[in-house]
Amino acid sequence: MTTAPRSARPTSTSEPVPSDAVALSSRARAQISDALDGRWRDLRRHTRDVAAEPGLVGIPGLPMPEHRARVLACLADLASRGEVQRAFPTRLGGGDNPGGNIAAFEELLVADPSLQIKAGVQWGLFGAAVLHLGTQHNHDELLPGIMSLEVPGAFAMTEIGHGSDVASIGTTATYDPDAEEFVIHTPFRGAWKEYLGNAALHGVAAVVFAQLVTGGVNHGVHAFYVPLRDTSREPDERGAYPMLPGVRSEDDGYKGGLNGIDNGRLAFDHVRVPRTNLLDRYGRVDPDGTYSSPIASPGRRFFTMLSTLVQGRVSLGGASAVASKMGLAIAVRYAEQRRQFPGADGVETVLMDYGTHRRRLLPLLARTYAVQLLHNDLLERFHGVFAGERDTDADREDLETLAAAAKPLATWHALETLQTCREACGGAGYMAANRIVGLRADLDVYVTFEGDNTVLLQLVGKRLLTDYGRETATMDVAGQARWVAKRAGDMALYRTPLRRASQSVRDWGSKARSASELRDPAVQRELLEDRVETMIEEIALRLRPSLKGSPEEKAAAFDANQAELVEAARAHGELMQWEAFTEALDSVTDPDGRRVLTWLRDLFGLHLIESHLAWYVVNGRLSAQRARTVTSYIERLLLRLRPYALQLVEVFGYGDAQLRADIATPAESERQAEAMAYHAALRESGDAPVSEKDLLKRAG
Amino acid sequence: MTTAPRSARPTSTSEPVPSDAVALSSRARAQISDALDGRWRDLRRHTRDVAAEPGLVGIPGLPMPEHRARVLACLADLASRGEVQRAFPTRLGGGDNPGGNIAAFEELLVADPSLQIKAGVQWGLFGAAVLHLGTQHNHDELLPGIMSLEVPGAFAMTEIGHGSDVASIGTTATYDPDAEEFVIHTPFRGAWKEYLGNAALHGVAAVVFAQLVTGGVNHGVHAFYVPLRDTSREPDERGAYPMLPGVRSEDDGYKGGLNGIDNGRLAFDHVRVPRTNLLDRYGRVDPDGTYSSPIASPGRRFFTMLSTLVQGRVSLGGASAVASKMGLAIAVRYAEQRRQFPGADGVETVLMDYGTHRRRLLPLLARTYAVQLLHNDLLERFHGVFAGERDTDADREDLETLAAAAKPLATWHALETLQTCREACGGAGYMAANRIVGLRADLDVYVTFEGDNTVLLQLVGKRLLTDYGRETATMDVAGQARWVAKRAGDMALYRTPLRRASQSVRDWGSKARSASELRDPAVQRELLEDRVETMIEEIALRLRPSLKGSPEEKAAAFDANQAELVEAARAHGELMQWEAFTEALDSVTDPDGRRVLTWLRDLFGLHLIESHLAWYVVNGRLSAQRARTVTSYIERLLLRLRPYALQLVEVFGYGDAQLRADIATPAESERQAEAMAYHAALRESGDAPVSEKDLLKRAG
Repeated sequence: MTTAPRSARPTSTSEPVPSDAVALSSRARAQISDALDGRWRDLRRHTRDVAAEPGLVGIPGLPMPEHRARVLACLADLASRGEVQRAFPTRLGGGDNPGGNIAAFEELLVADPSLQIKAGVQWGLFGAAVLHLGTQHNHDELLPGIMSLEVPGAFAMTEIGHGSDVASIGTTATYDPDAEEFVIHTPFRGAWKEYLGNAALHGVAAVVFAQLVTGGVNHGVHAFYVPLRDTSREPDERGAYPMLPGVRSEDDGYKGGLNGIDNGRLAFDHVRVPRTNLLDRYGRVDPDGTYSSPIASPGRRFFTMLSTLVQGRVSLGGASAVASKMGLAIAVRYAEQRRQFPGADGVETVLMDYGTHRRRLLPLLARTYAVQLLHNDLLERFHGVFAGERDTDADREDLETLAAAAKPLATWHALETLQTCREACGGAGYMAANRIVGLRADLDVYVTFEGDNTVLLQLVGKRLLTDYGRETATMDVAGQARWVAKRAGDMALYRTPLRRASQSVRDWGSKARSASELRDPAVQRELLEDRVETMIEEIALRLRPSLKGSPEEKAAAFDANQAELVEAARAHGELMQWEAFTEALDSVTDPDGRRVLTWLRDLFGLHLIESHLAWYVVNGRLSAQRARTVTSYIERLLLRLRPYALQLVEVFGYGDAQLRADIATPAESERQAEAMAYHAALRESGDAPVSEKDLLKRAG
Repeated sequence: MTTAPRSARPTSTSEPVPSDAVALSSRARAQISDALDGRWRDLRRHTRDVAAEPGLVGIPGLPMPEHRARVLACLADLASRGEVQRAFPTRLGGGDNPGGNIAAFEELLVADPSLQIKAGVQWGLFGAAVLHLGTQHNHDELLPGIMSLEVPGAFAMTEIGHGSDVASIGTTATYDPDAEEFVIHTPFRGAWKEYLGNAALHGVAAVVFAQLVTGGVNHGVHAFYVPLRDTSREPDERGAYPMLPGVRSEDDGYKGGLNGIDNGRLAFDHVRVPRTNLLDRYGRVDPDGTYSSPIASPGRRFFTMLSTLVQGRVSLGGASAVASKMGLAIAVRYAEQRRQFPGADGVETVLMDYGTHRRRLLPLLARTYAVQLLHNDLLERFHGVFAGERDTDADREDLETLAAAAKPLATWHALETLQTCREACGGAGYMAANRIVGLRADLDVYVTFEGDNTVLLQLVGKRLLTDYGRETATMDVAGQARWVAKRAGDMALYRTPLRRASQSVRDWGSKARSASELRDPAVQRELLEDRVETMIEEIALRLRPSLKGSPEEKAAAFDANQAELVEAARAHGELMQWEAFTEALDSVTDPDGRRVLTWLRDLFGLHLIESHLAWYVVNGRLSAQRARTVTSYIERLLLRLRPYALQLVEVFGYGDAQLRADIATPAESERQAEAMAYHAALRESGDAPVSEKDLLKRAG
């Protein structure tokens, strides 16, 4: 029974350094920190401090009614301090800063994900819909109340019957030219609006998505501003004002997390709103009922409207990165002090020194960097489009595709990371006081809201197929023939098509065989790129015979390839993460910092390759012999990175005030010091019992 | 916007059958059900009904204090009805039925995992410790109060400072021969007993594990019965009786789940208990302080004592199978009716008909069968040992190893399954009313309590290494030389050792190359076996050079191989699952039932092989060409199994009363029917708006 720690334990909570760590210079740490925090780093750091204020932080186990009331009050506080309006027009008191607004929004997670998501409902969905789908008259009339939280609101898009398939929603908004009003109506139970934050209690208005019908024609889904509750009367004991005539609300009750938000359902029984309540940027109705739109195609109009709401996806990915960083900061701080089982020297081993522990945590740490760094790119693109700096159709299309790839990867990553961190902390990880389980429960829904992850990856896959089609379509007939012949040759050789037919073909097959270093970034890139391209090409080739078939045949062929298409989209997202990580290395000029970060990038890249090793070997990209070296490279990197683990989470910028987890404080090492002192004193006193084992050894 | 379902939807909640399903005969279903429910199927089914009683089921969102009180009351109810005492001696009112007791215990999860685990604390840990570590005088004195719940108790083994490493706990029990008492003492903060159910409120006694010291000798960890609270006085407003002198308690507060249990911490300040409160089966202390034990070796004694507590591990694996089955029953019922996005025919597609959905759910369904069927084997072995039917040292050792392999796989499987099911149900899956998130939150801690999963797999890996060492040790010198030479040859050929050197070597390499069917069970078995054996052999060979080194060198070598040893242990568990599944096929004599179940077993086996495909290809066990067929076989199996998905979850035996999830009822298909009827009536009335898209098509 030995509990003597190897060396003096850290006593400061701010920067405990493990005994065998090599300290990075403050310059190196600052550069890494800047790279992670990105363009709006000042806003991020400011918001981290705000979100750690005692009045704003979540209280584990607070009962749902109190939690909901608290979060509403916190939102009002944030609104009164101007912390949440940066995306709105300057002329109305905002900041015209879409990117900075999202960066700050993401850091609100530090306080409480319920607070973050309720803020997202109010300003990122309800307010953003008015901003992006409305025109100036909508803005002037509606935004001030939304920005100040005088008018809490719901974003009523999803229905019980239709989530991902928004085009098929059942709610109707029928124009009545005599009254110059729209009649909002829920025709059946499946068309009830569902899962809406602010719907159960606090919403006094909503942006309602409905099929716009005028003159007997359905012009598709449009958004309408609809008052819900009567604020001229007294609220009930739950804090909810009475419903307006024709509006009904139900409470979703307890959820898997985010219980500080009053999610609920809404239905409308022929509720009338003025004609001007149509958010009319992409479709207007004249007083006489004449419909007009700047976008002639109903399909393109619909997707354009939805695309203005991309910020939800962007910000959830970023919030997931925040949660991942917090989880790892807690787990690594704990793993650097917690000890279990005596080692060879009789001293108990620090968890971080276990091979299994490094294997569990460090690849996730590397991927967390990749997630954050890709998110930073995405956020800059988002800002470019929405601040009007780079706002072509192609920019918007690229933004949407990247957001659709980054969000699933980031949100799933957060769940995996938080769960692994929770398990790595053992029973202590399961205590609400240690934060991780709460974060995981709240983050759970991020993988299906604002675009179901699987559906988003299908969209990305389709885009990749389209791009592939465009490329091959530009070839002339002779080129196509050569291309098909080449494919056939590849098929015979490798039983699979090898490379896409573009000028980017490089003789990389031989390179992979000759390159001595899988850690060569060029080789990593080639391997990751090649996998995406080949998978897409294979799917395209398999789909080709069905293209001239019936719709049913096409659908069946697509269904048969759907799972692999999702896998290809994931591979595309991973490549984007790797590229972003690699690009970010340039910003770290400190040699030590860059070396450590390069190891971390290599760990990320090699871990990806290891995850997909079967593909690389089966498809002849890696020999069996080379494949075997991947894992040993990884093990070497894990050992190299191990002394930096703590520093690599400290640069995230989450201190005690943000983490608020008992196990992330030095309490554990203090307890070990106390136990050690007890045993030392006992030995000194001469009263220490001798162990039966030692007696037997002496006797034997 | 089309919501017309393809065919009439099911109206009965008991057995909805998808339109394209091929119905298995009731005989086939009964046989599959019997195989799944195993030897104690009657007790399982009885308990499922009990656990669905309104008075016992959990209430989502019930605040913690009420939840704790309710669960305690439910336990009293179960105790009064004799539902929880089957493991105890018949002479004291039990059933001497260790296996049946566990089977019934596992099904209590249906009511509420908090209820199950609190029952586990009381009768499976606290009571079982008295039963297995005590002798008749302990039984006669203590068991009646425990069995009736007159004495709720805690199982005080884990300390803040020591979880997995029980041997190092700090609590002491020092014998005082003058008073003939043990003095139970917590010498420092790290030695506080931690995470104990019943410690915060309800426990009036505990079995406390402490270092037994008598005559200045520490005889290692033993268990003591220690009263905690004074039931002669009034309980406080939380329902807790006052602490006895010297005993302190703290409340763990909110946890990630299981909030119906009052977990807490305990400390003892020189608390005296009579000498006879030592549970004295494996160690006794005479009045004069003389220690004696039937097991001379302190190490073996310690492990023997711990091994009597294997039932926790066994039952958590079984409970995880129950949770997995419930999650899948809910998700598949929903996936069979939920529709999203119009298909080629304009009719919205049922989720279960999506390639991605099949890929997500059906391999987990197959693995759930494997988990349950291996658990049934394990439970029979457990019963054999604890009912004294087959109770040799080898039986106990095998039981422990199998339990240590099965528990991690089953508990991690449950988390993966529940999470996948939750995501497959979209936002609806996140609602507490649909059960899945609650089950997942509660089950989370199963992966680290009663043996941390990673630590357990390390134990299994060590056992596999030991067995390997025993086998090679029996070879003579010439044999060893030949063996080493053969290894060297293999290494040259494959860069890895190929087969273990035992008489079981089969010429399977050529078989794999020639066999036309990966679905041949002999091939599946060979592939799975070979992987375990080869991994263990490789690790043993890598460890060999360090065996003659210093303890530090040995430890470093072991650490470097730890992650792979855990992977080998997992592979061993997977092989055991596959064997159990295959063996169970024999009990299904109905040809249709057996055919479908064989597909499911093949899906399980091939999915395992696909998960480890890189290993098989890199190590020359599968050619690249054959490897490519694995995934296409799987896709074919998924299509074959798809019509049986619903029936394969219905045979689990969980109906509406057990599932209690809105989305597992026909509510969704009823809403679709309502929407369809609305649209049909609108079309008939002639008032249906025409869509702008259709107008444009007509115009174009």
